[in-house]
Amino acid sequence: MTNTQVTLVQIDNYGPWTVTPAPRREPDLQALQADLYADLARQFGSRDGYVFYTRFDNVLAVTNGIDRAAHARVQEAVRNRYPVTVSLSTARAETPAAAEAEATARLQAAGGAQEADRREALRGDPTARTESGDVEVAHFDVVDVTDTYTDAESAFDSLRTVERAYLELADRLHDGHDSLAFFVGGDNVIAVTPGLSRGAYESVVDGVRAAAGVDLRVGVGDGATAAEAGMSAKHALEECRERDLTVSGDLRAIRGN
Amino acid sequence: MTNTQVTLVQIDNYGPWTVTPAPRREPDLQALQADLYADLARQFGSRDGYVFYTRFDNVLAVTNGIDRAAHARVQEAVRNRYPVTVSLSTARAETPAAAEAEATARLQAAGGAQEADRREALRGDPTARTESGDVEVAHFDVVDVTDTYTDAESAFDSLRTVERAYLELADRLHDGHDSLAFFVGGDNVIAVTPGLSRGAYESVVDGVRAAAGVDLRVGVGDGATAAEAGMSAKHALEECRERDLTVSGDLRAIRGN
Amino acid sequence: MTNTQVTLVQIDNYGPWTVTPAPRREPDLQALQADLYADLARQFGSRDGYVFYTRFDNVLAVTNGIDRAAHARVQEAVRNRYPVTVSLSTARAETPAAAEAEATARLQAAGGAQEADRREALRGDPTARTESGDVEVAHFDVVDVTDTYTDAESAFDSLRTVERAYLELADRLHDGHDSLAFFVGGDNVIAVTPGLSRGAYESVVDGVRAAAGVDLRVGVGDGATAAEAGMSAKHALEECRERDLTVSGDLRAIRGN
Amino acid sequence: MTNTQVTLVQIDNYGPWTVTPAPRREPDLQALQADLYADLARQFGSRDGYVFYTRFDNVLAVTNGIDRAAHARVQEAVRNRYPVTVSLSTARAETPAAAEAEATARLQAAGGAQEADRREALRGDPTARTESGDVEVAHFDVVDVTDTYTDAESAFDSLRTVERAYLELADRLHDGHDSLAFFVGGDNVIAVTPGLSRGAYESVVDGVRAAAGVDLRVGVGDGATAAEAGMSAKHALEECRERDLTVSGDLRAIRGN
Repeated sequence: MTNTQVTLVQIDNYGPWTVTPAPRREPDLQALQADLYADLARQFGSRDGYVFYTRFDNVLAVTNGIDRAAHARVQEAVRNRYPVTVSLSTARAETPAAAEAEATARLQAAGGAQEADRREALRGDPTARTESGDVEVAHFDVVDVTDTYTDAESAFDSLRTVERAYLELADRLHDGHDSLAFFVGGDNVIAVTPGLSRGAYESVVDGVRAAAGVDLRVGVGDGATAAEAGMSAKHALEECRERDLTVSGDLRAIRGN
Repeated sequence: MTNTQVTLVQIDNYGPWTVTPAPRREPDLQALQADLYADLARQFGSRDGYVFYTRFDNVLAVTNGIDRAAHARVQEAVRNRYPVTVSLSTARAETPAAAEAEATARLQAAGGAQEADRREALRGDPTARTESGDVEVAHFDVVDVTDTYTDAESAFDSLRTVERAYLELADRLHDGHDSLAFFVGGDNVIAVTPGLSRGAYESVVDGVRAAAGVDLRVGVGDGATAAEAGMSAKHALEECRERDLTVSGDLRAIRGN
Repeated sequence: MTNTQVTLVQIDNYGPWTVTPAPRREPDLQALQADLYADLARQFGSRDGYVFYTRFDNVLAVTNGIDRAAHARVQEAVRNRYPVTVSLSTARAETPAAAEAEATARLQAAGGAQEADRREALRGDPTARTESGDVEVAHFDVVDVTDTYTDAESAFDSLRTVERAYLELADRLHDGHDSLAFFVGGDNVIAVTPGLSRGAYESVVDGVRAAAGVDLRVGVGDGATAAEAGMSAKHALEECRERDLTVSGDLRAIRGN
Repeated sequence: MTNTQVTLVQIDNYGPWTVTPAPRREPDLQALQADLYADLARQFGSRDGYVFYTRFDNVLAVTNGIDRAAHARVQEAVRNRYPVTVSLSTARAETPAAAEAEATARLQAAGGAQEADRREALRGDPTARTESGDVEVAHFDVVDVTDTYTDAESAFDSLRTVERAYLELADRLHDGHDSLAFFVGGDNVIAVTPGLSRGAYESVVDGVRAAAGVDLRVGVGDGATAAEAGMSAKHALEECRERDLTVSGDLRAIRGN
């Protein structure tokens, strides 16, 4: 088991803002959303967190090692640089899925996403304390994506293929293994997992191949922070590429799940 | 029928760059991708285009009204501000799907995404000429998304729900109606369509409800540019919200498809 | 004589905002100011304008070729992406100094920088009409700056040397030649000038050498837009470097001033 | 006396890059420089540092509390997000001017700013250790700037007035008091000082009034980091505004200098 700290960042009352007093131009909203996400990636990233854009108005981060003061600082920086504010909610649990569910529940308890009087909520008790092995990251990509998809299909078909594989993978990892998987661009999916066995990874890769017709491989790493686990996973994925493996990394054979 | 101009922006040889000489930190890559996308949104957006992030290493834009010189200027700006370069390929056709397929084919003919000697290709013949009705945009969102999903489910479950509905919608619009649909954050999907009938929109909304269990509504607009069509679609979607409609906009009854 | 179009961009009521309800963190303000400036550089720059950061809360741009709709679009984009709004005021005159003075006067007539009810003013009548020769740009740099200053003095002393030379140059160009000079980073000063003679440039360079002890050289170019004139000036400055000249460019001998 | 840690950030071989293979467009360079500066402000700022843009190709930061690993992380992030790289050099001394001179000297010893083989140097030994009182910040602004200048003079004249006052102040603080002063936009100058007496501040303010005709006031604060000292200085400056004082803050009467 791991001890994953997850933070949900939610723009306060964003939907109404996008159409008040009249619908705002889409490219302006797109630039705003991407700017805000890039800023969160810089801020949490400089403290060894990983941030996933998900729906852009809701952003999920793995924040092991990042304390409450740093969270408050992120919230303050957003207020000072953007026309919107954000609420943050953090939870910690043995599985990423449980931590995420708890973080969401805490924010929902603080008020709805479109309640005008819930503004800059800061829930949960993020802490800098984290230990080796508290985070496991599995970094997936698509085997031969360039030859098979990017250079062979239309860009839109490649997008759908990758999205379909992502969704299949996310469902299997979440519902079967209490994990959170995120599409991070290109042909990459990064999952935060609770310490899965080699067999579990092989099983989800097989399942995605059967259901979506897409061949994945995965590098797995762990660490005290997302950055540490994630970099280890990236190196393991490089090993998959070089040695033509499906799963690589320092997997403990006896892990449950 | 419309006359949609589509541009594919592809980062040159991006995959190898991300792991050379060693894997680069994920938050740095995430920030780079979001910065580059936000920059494209600013540049094409200031000329009335719409830009969709898709896979981030491949970005699709609707560029009616934007000529070759402006495309070359975007390419130059990327070279001057980022550690990567981009190739651009444009095509124009009566349906968005046909234009997109042709744009991709032209870029593939110029060389593979990971061929080191294909760098800053600029294919196709984008033009500023565009006419009223050349672009149709359909802006979808999820009915009662906040109450039904954001404030009720975990953030990750809401993400999967929205992604699943998006994929179902994208498949139906593409395979049945030669349209391109893109998730743009929150609960919003923007589709570029070739002038569809009310019945066609009702049919895809019904199909998504049946297959994914998600209720959508859609505002439709047309114009000479994506900005014009898209803003008209946004106002039509506002009308859906106010009057509790499923489809709104200036739909021509006699449209084929 | 030229026909220079100058636009003043002023953040509305910025000073009070920076300390309400309490002083905001300086690095947040610095990032905001730089983000906003970079955004203006992208937007006006993509339409062949030049933008100078000056005091950051007041930004000056040369906007020949950029019409009222594009100005309004910039204003809208700022409102949609930042926690502050901007007012814009444009004027056109035979000299840059006269255009700038008039643009400022028009904005002052619309209300003070800290009047809470002056918000998003848009004054003047910017137009896309511009002709060859309407803009002249003079691009200065410091001779041997790296050997003489950057690699020889402390970074702070180099800064003061460059600032002192800039201020001396700005005074001479403005008070003697109705020109606007801006420090643009490194050892570069870009001036917008009304069509000066070689003798005028030699005189200001001599004056700066005498008063501030700094050796400058200058490339001069003209065009219908700042981009065209500015790029021509850059090539002329390259010629100065290669051929060890003090003044280069297509200067008309008979020019007055 | 203080114990100020200063870091010099210098873009490697920037001048040649800006004109290779041909001069790059000025607005692209302006956006790049501002983006890079904003990124440094975010990164050092999130760790309680202050960053000053100075010449943009050379940036000075006060980095008390920021260790070597964090410096290396900034360097890595720049490499991963920009078309240029940076060298960093840090030093620590009892006065800001001495620290800055030593940081520059260390970088110069590592190679010239335009030596192609000096790339990503990282010199000095930045440390997270810092104590209460190690940093003193003096935050100056111009009395009645809006009425006297912004709303009364042309924007360019206001710029020159503020720049002239800045340069006068910087000279007096540096040459007389071993301090580093930086213009930070608007009418604000932030100085890093070695613990000056009230009399010293009064003397420089009087000197600037006599020499440049500009009335300044100043709030002074100290702390273990630039953020702490700087926020204290901002509150002291607010007190100046409210109570019409020239100098405010927790100044120790017995301080030397």
